[in-house]
Amino acid sequence: MNKNKHTDITWREKLHDIIYEAETPAGKAFDVVLLVFIFLSVIFVMLESVPGLEPWVYEYLIYAEWIITILFTIEYILRIISIRRPSRYIFSFYGIIDFLSTIPLYLSFFITGSSALITFRALRLLRVFRVLKISRYMGEGNRLLGALRNSRAKIFVFLFAVVVLSIIAGTLMYMIEGEKAGFTSIPVGVYWTIVTLTTVGFGDIHPITSMGRFLASLIMILGYGIIAVPTGIVSAEYSARSRNDQSFNSLSCYNCNEKTHLDRAKYCHRCGYSLRNEIRKKNE
Amino acid sequence: MNKNKHTDITWREKLHDIIYEAETPAGKAFDVVLLVFIFLSVIFVMLESVPGLEPWVYEYLIYAEWIITILFTIEYILRIISIRRPSRYIFSFYGIIDFLSTIPLYLSFFITGSSALITFRALRLLRVFRVLKISRYMGEGNRLLGALRNSRAKIFVFLFAVVVLSIIAGTLMYMIEGEKAGFTSIPVGVYWTIVTLTTVGFGDIHPITSMGRFLASLIMILGYGIIAVPTGIVSAEYSARSRNDQSFNSLSCYNCNEKTHLDRAKYCHRCGYSLRNEIRKKNE
Amino acid sequence: MNKNKHTDITWREKLHDIIYEAETPAGKAFDVVLLVFIFLSVIFVMLESVPGLEPWVYEYLIYAEWIITILFTIEYILRIISIRRPSRYIFSFYGIIDFLSTIPLYLSFFITGSSALITFRALRLLRVFRVLKISRYMGEGNRLLGALRNSRAKIFVFLFAVVVLSIIAGTLMYMIEGEKAGFTSIPVGVYWTIVTLTTVGFGDIHPITSMGRFLASLIMILGYGIIAVPTGIVSAEYSARSRNDQSFNSLSCYNCNEKTHLDRAKYCHRCGYSLRNEIRKKNE
Amino acid sequence: MNKNKHTDITWREKLHDIIYEAETPAGKAFDVVLLVFIFLSVIFVMLESVPGLEPWVYEYLIYAEWIITILFTIEYILRIISIRRPSRYIFSFYGIIDFLSTIPLYLSFFITGSSALITFRALRLLRVFRVLKISRYMGEGNRLLGALRNSRAKIFVFLFAVVVLSIIAGTLMYMIEGEKAGFTSIPVGVYWTIVTLTTVGFGDIHPITSMGRFLASLIMILGYGIIAVPTGIVSAEYSARSRNDQSFNSLSCYNCNEKTHLDRAKYCHRCGYSLRNEIRKKNE
Repeated sequence: MNKNKHTDITWREKLHDIIYEAETPAGKAFDVVLLVFIFLSVIFVMLESVPGLEPWVYEYLIYAEWIITILFTIEYILRIISIRRPSRYIFSFYGIIDFLSTIPLYLSFFITGSSALITFRALRLLRVFRVLKISRYMGEGNRLLGALRNSRAKIFVFLFAVVVLSIIAGTLMYMIEGEKAGFTSIPVGVYWTIVTLTTVGFGDIHPITSMGRFLASLIMILGYGIIAVPTGIVSAEYSARSRNDQSFNSLSCYNCNEKTHLDRAKYCHRCGYSLRNEIRKKNE
Repeated sequence: MNKNKHTDITWREKLHDIIYEAETPAGKAFDVVLLVFIFLSVIFVMLESVPGLEPWVYEYLIYAEWIITILFTIEYILRIISIRRPSRYIFSFYGIIDFLSTIPLYLSFFITGSSALITFRALRLLRVFRVLKISRYMGEGNRLLGALRNSRAKIFVFLFAVVVLSIIAGTLMYMIEGEKAGFTSIPVGVYWTIVTLTTVGFGDIHPITSMGRFLASLIMILGYGIIAVPTGIVSAEYSARSRNDQSFNSLSCYNCNEKTHLDRAKYCHRCGYSLRNEIRKKNE
Repeated sequence: MNKNKHTDITWREKLHDIIYEAETPAGKAFDVVLLVFIFLSVIFVMLESVPGLEPWVYEYLIYAEWIITILFTIEYILRIISIRRPSRYIFSFYGIIDFLSTIPLYLSFFITGSSALITFRALRLLRVFRVLKISRYMGEGNRLLGALRNSRAKIFVFLFAVVVLSIIAGTLMYMIEGEKAGFTSIPVGVYWTIVTLTTVGFGDIHPITSMGRFLASLIMILGYGIIAVPTGIVSAEYSARSRNDQSFNSLSCYNCNEKTHLDRAKYCHRCGYSLRNEIRKKNE
Repeated sequence: MNKNKHTDITWREKLHDIIYEAETPAGKAFDVVLLVFIFLSVIFVMLESVPGLEPWVYEYLIYAEWIITILFTIEYILRIISIRRPSRYIFSFYGIIDFLSTIPLYLSFFITGSSALITFRALRLLRVFRVLKISRYMGEGNRLLGALRNSRAKIFVFLFAVVVLSIIAGTLMYMIEGEKAGFTSIPVGVYWTIVTLTTVGFGDIHPITSMGRFLASLIMILGYGIIAVPTGIVSAEYSARSRNDQSFNSLSCYNCNEKTHLDRAKYCHRCGYSLRNEIRKKNE
């Protein structure tokens, strides 16, 4: 009704829907195109850091850099003008990332070395999760996040235990092994303990005394056992979640009192009595 | 009735059954013999690449190579003539592998170095899964694949998160550590992050600054936590699958064709129709 | 009533509540402040071990060390005077740690090198679990510990199997590889096997012969399979625990005191006595 | 009745019970003492291999060696004379291990170097599982073994897939990286792939080309995903086993047909009716 009055707002609203929403075909197309450019820009930034390529590659990369920077600038301006309260976008997480990933090339005219900021573009990749949101992965992602959120407290306790354990073991290893084995300070010992406990094991620092190796063995076996804990937590949580999501409801048959029915069941599977009344009551 | 008419087709059909099917004793025997030869050929190819063996070993390997190539050629020809539409085999996945693993020795007369293609024979090992299919492992394999297929969407989201995380962390590590520590470019940093996140930890590249080691610790603990996710997913999925396999039967209702019934169900939960006849038929 | 009589005991009791209990606001505040100081002292000890800092940093660290030692001394004295039977605190686990982490600086006047004992302060971090106890993590922690306690026997069998396997494999590797590859003795072989079986893989010692590499491959694949066992145990235990938490209630039968009842139970499964009154009381 | 007739058989039977059985107090005591000596002998063998100890240590170890060898000889003789059909012991798994772990020192008089056989003593440690059998760990062990046995087929398929994958990936890495990176032959490539896929990652061999590193990243992420499979299998299997083992029986109440009862239930928890008749029928 009031739409004809403020046509510029309608225009802005449309733009807003395309840029910020991902539900409409146009919005989804915009997001996919944007993602392609973000991916390209990330690949260009990565390529630029590779030494020993042909000189013309670097030259082309500079052109590509400029094209992408201009496109990102346009996108940034469109985002600001299409939103009712620009400050809500500018100071949001994505707003700051968008700004930081667009500005470096302009800054490089004034400040040398500022183009290092260009690596912030990698963070723009996070935007991919926004597109995934609309697809069928939404349910999966939510379920996963839900399982992680439910396990939050447990995982926090677990991580804390790992940190305390690392500090104690790192201190002991520093005292036992000392500088000859590469344990030059307690923080280095803690770093080594984390490397070992997580079963990464770079091998840049490693125990050389019998005592140190014995303690290292204990830490490793402990780490091996500890890995079971977060896995077990997430697994159990996720399993419970799937079970609850699963296809059973809590209706009980009026005739035989059977209580395990598939969600979509209309008749009791034990006596064939209709479940219609129970379903109606539940929905009321 | 019409069998006597086209005896050559019957002969071809028999050959087809032996070569392509694995259900009959002859077909199974053919597949097992073939697998033995594939295994032998793979072992010969591996041995050939080992430097420092006695000269006569290499000589014998050449003979073995020729024998196996001839056998594979015969098998390839038989496969083509025994199938009604040869193109369906020739351009199938296994058809291409079979061709590529047979041709190299012939090619080596004309093109030097083409015998490197012989390593395609390793791919023929995949054929083993076809033989496993007939055995009692079929059910297990199907269940495993089913669990993986159901987890597909979740695993995709998970892998994507790992890749995005690796790019961001790899870029940061490249900025923090630089070339002295071996982080010569961003792709190298991403490679290092994947090595670390998966807890492999070769140690060829490793952080040397305090800042880098701190970030590495975070990545490692994160990787430790992340490993819980795919395990939890597959575990829960597989668990649910086992549970469902137990409590559901494969009867289909005569009235409404509903196919998911609890094992103890006596009436269709969708239409209330008795399942008595289906259960009787099954038990006979 | 009798409180006015012994005011000093009341004062001591109050102090006791603050220092030893964590349920009251004052007690919780005391514990949090104490934890902050413990964390600070641990960070200072860690910093002190780092070589190559500015000289003034070490100077400040000495001051900080003294301040913290004095605070810990006061805390230690308060703990002794506020408890009715000081010996129960002094010879407790925490009492010994508190003493060992307070004394080193005083000792350093008399004995050089005794300040190495200061690293015992890292053990004071364990106190953090006492504070966690009061928070909402208590339930989680209990459930986790419960799952681990229930899995104790299984995990013991599992660890024992790992140790026996390590000794056998370590001996074999020592015999196969010998000193050239770094396997200088059987204990070193056992250490290497643990490093490998836990998938840590430092790489300081690694097989170089074909035979050794073949055995190492077997050990690694075994280790890969073995890791499934503790994870499966904890996961299943934890899962069962969550499930049991759901389907059992904590009613106790008025007649026979049986305490394990299904949530939906209306009669005691042991003596047949009605649980009606217990359920009514619970719901009130 | 006939016992007085053949007193020597009774004496032998008693000895048999002590040595071969672990159910009686004497039998258990014998097994524990034997285990202590096996442990000691293993520690002595391990110590002997350590270079750089004081000369008198080696001297004492020789004495200890002789004492243990004599004790093991006595045990071996007792085992032979106390069993009715000695051949059943001599050619059993433990019989052969016992023989091989006792003989080396005697052999060393005739053949130099035969004392290397002494490392077979580590295998005697396996005997520990026989003692564990009698304790409360029996149930746990059985349940674990049961879960593993049930998962056998799945684990076999899984291991086979890992081996095929390793051969294919190892061949590719050999072709891509070549000798410069340490991939001197295809078997070495396969070894490296197993090291990487199991997330051990020694780092003695590692890719140096971009292409090789890219393939390595794929292998690592794959390995990361693959680890979920055995864990999921064992976890689900074990979980199902616990559930079935759990405290529910399959009795159905005569009165109300309720079918979920705790194993120790004597009365129906739904209607309070006695389950006595159902339990009696089951036990008959």
